[in-house]
Amino acid sequence: MEHGGGGLLSNELITGLILPLFRNSYLDRLEDGAVFEIGTKRLCFTTDSYVVHPLFFPGGDIGSLAVHGTVNDLAMCGGKPLFLSAGLIIEEGFPLADLERILRSLAEAAAGSGVQIVTGDTKVVNRGAADGLFINTSGIGLIEYPGLISVASVEAGDAVILNGAVGDHGAAILSCREELSLTSGIISDSAPLNDLVTIVLNTSPRIHCMRDATRGGLGAILAEIAARSCLDILIEERDIPIHEDVRGLCEILGLDPLFLANEGKMALFCPWEDAERVLAAMKVHPRGREASLIGRVQGGGRGRLILNTLIGGRREVDLPTGELVPRIC
Amino acid sequence: MEHGGGGLLSNELITGLILPLFRNSYLDRLEDGAVFEIGTKRLCFTTDSYVVHPLFFPGGDIGSLAVHGTVNDLAMCGGKPLFLSAGLIIEEGFPLADLERILRSLAEAAAGSGVQIVTGDTKVVNRGAADGLFINTSGIGLIEYPGLISVASVEAGDAVILNGAVGDHGAAILSCREELSLTSGIISDSAPLNDLVTIVLNTSPRIHCMRDATRGGLGAILAEIAARSCLDILIEERDIPIHEDVRGLCEILGLDPLFLANEGKMALFCPWEDAERVLAAMKVHPRGREASLIGRVQGGGRGRLILNTLIGGRREVDLPTGELVPRIC
Repeated sequence: MEHGGGGLLSNELITGLILPLFRNSYLDRLEDGAVFEIGTKRLCFTTDSYVVHPLFFPGGDIGSLAVHGTVNDLAMCGGKPLFLSAGLIIEEGFPLADLERILRSLAEAAAGSGVQIVTGDTKVVNRGAADGLFINTSGIGLIEYPGLISVASVEAGDAVILNGAVGDHGAAILSCREELSLTSGIISDSAPLNDLVTIVLNTSPRIHCMRDATRGGLGAILAEIAARSCLDILIEERDIPIHEDVRGLCEILGLDPLFLANEGKMALFCPWEDAERVLAAMKVHPRGREASLIGRVQGGGRGRLILNTLIGGRREVDLPTGELVPRIC
Repeated sequence: MEHGGGGLLSNELITGLILPLFRNSYLDRLEDGAVFEIGTKRLCFTTDSYVVHPLFFPGGDIGSLAVHGTVNDLAMCGGKPLFLSAGLIIEEGFPLADLERILRSLAEAAAGSGVQIVTGDTKVVNRGAADGLFINTSGIGLIEYPGLISVASVEAGDAVILNGAVGDHGAAILSCREELSLTSGIISDSAPLNDLVTIVLNTSPRIHCMRDATRGGLGAILAEIAARSCLDILIEERDIPIHEDVRGLCEILGLDPLFLANEGKMALFCPWEDAERVLAAMKVHPRGREASLIGRVQGGGRGRLILNTLIGGRREVDLPTGELVPRIC
């Protein structure tokens, strides 16, 4: 299970087995999507399979999630999402009413994100060969931003900005699982970030890197960016917004909200001088209202993520070995 | 099950439920992929999820199939396949050695088709939530052919050309299923058709339509093209190549090879005057050696597929309600 969880074992599977087989300059970048040129235009291309359990959760369902997740991956490349594909794997006997509800939600999420579903595929497998429904969406985006948005662009001195509270999606999924079924009232943050990204890109010509904090949460993406850039990232726990109910659930269950999944949260890196301006622009947008400057990239580091804790301590944050919550997206 | 089989119920699901929700000019064309312009370039985009059972079969495995299937969908749009994504859904406990073998096969098939895997995703689901491994591939192709390759371009008088014997893939999968496990020696025809298509497109500037005969077989794609173009297609049974062992297996099992799946077979439509030239060019290529002129589009028809049988009869071929062989691709 832990090979698919976005943690250390997941990294091992990808860098140990998959990358050597498929070596090319696109994959080797290990970004959220591949970037290439067609004629005079720069495009990005990304794919994600969604296996979230349960299929319906507070704040969304597998249909809306499959749109938001892929739209956000394109946005993180600096791409305006243009076209999405949808590939459905349906278990025999899956209720048609549920399928219709999910497809309707998928269509609405696409319309709400300004992207068109232009091609699709439907496979039905026998009972027991899949868990209800899986959806793959792949997407194509158009990049008009002149800068190179990439882990390779992250520099010492960069500010780290987060667009809002972390852990909502993971906590929402967890609390509606059969084995728990808490009535927490926590709602997934599943949402498209492309509008917010457009604002950000229009505000600064020097956005260095953006990454949505999905599987593995904020902790995993920052630890990975630190490791791959060989720069230390120092973040302040007190500046990371966490909703009270999420914090409460994490305390009960002994989970670290830093590693809980999000589906509408991103971290971005830009020069310190631009941070105020970017932050101010984000706060005007509904999905950036709780945006916060949470840290800074250090010079002379060794690729570590370092957390200044609430109680005044300082600790290195490691990528978790496995995953906190399986089938979160 | 039959909703996913490429037959009549599958059509109902797509036209009844899916299309009305996602209405747009790309999807409404119901071709193998979506075609759009980016700057001055014309691209095509397609997706397919592969759920073939068993994962390994004579002539290929789910990895090579996932490349060939999507490469062929791009080729059928007249596109040179450029980039592929790969999304894996892996069941917990799936043997790593099998995964490696499949990924190696996927990488080799990509190299053999001249396409690059540029982005990917891996999800692991708990034991029992998937049947071993499912793979989604989506692809982007570049269309340089000036003509419009589409069902909408099919005309009365067009020749129908097939590139080789039908039913191999379906028969190969069937004969290696646990419940049968015949030692038939039949090998899947799974192969990339993009090279052959390049030859075809260089031979005639008037290729009207191409379609690979996958799920539902040659019968299903021709019946669908007839219905959508509102033209009758008349085909000659004696001109449709079928390998002896496939014919034998079909006789034993009471199956019609016309509806058995293929993964390296295509039908193409071009003006009768160009047919000889196109056929001659195809026969030079290994995947077109058994190419055959199998029929003709009739004027004044009503969207029927009509078969002149071996024994001198003539019958209308209907789209099968369900599927002959589930999880064939």
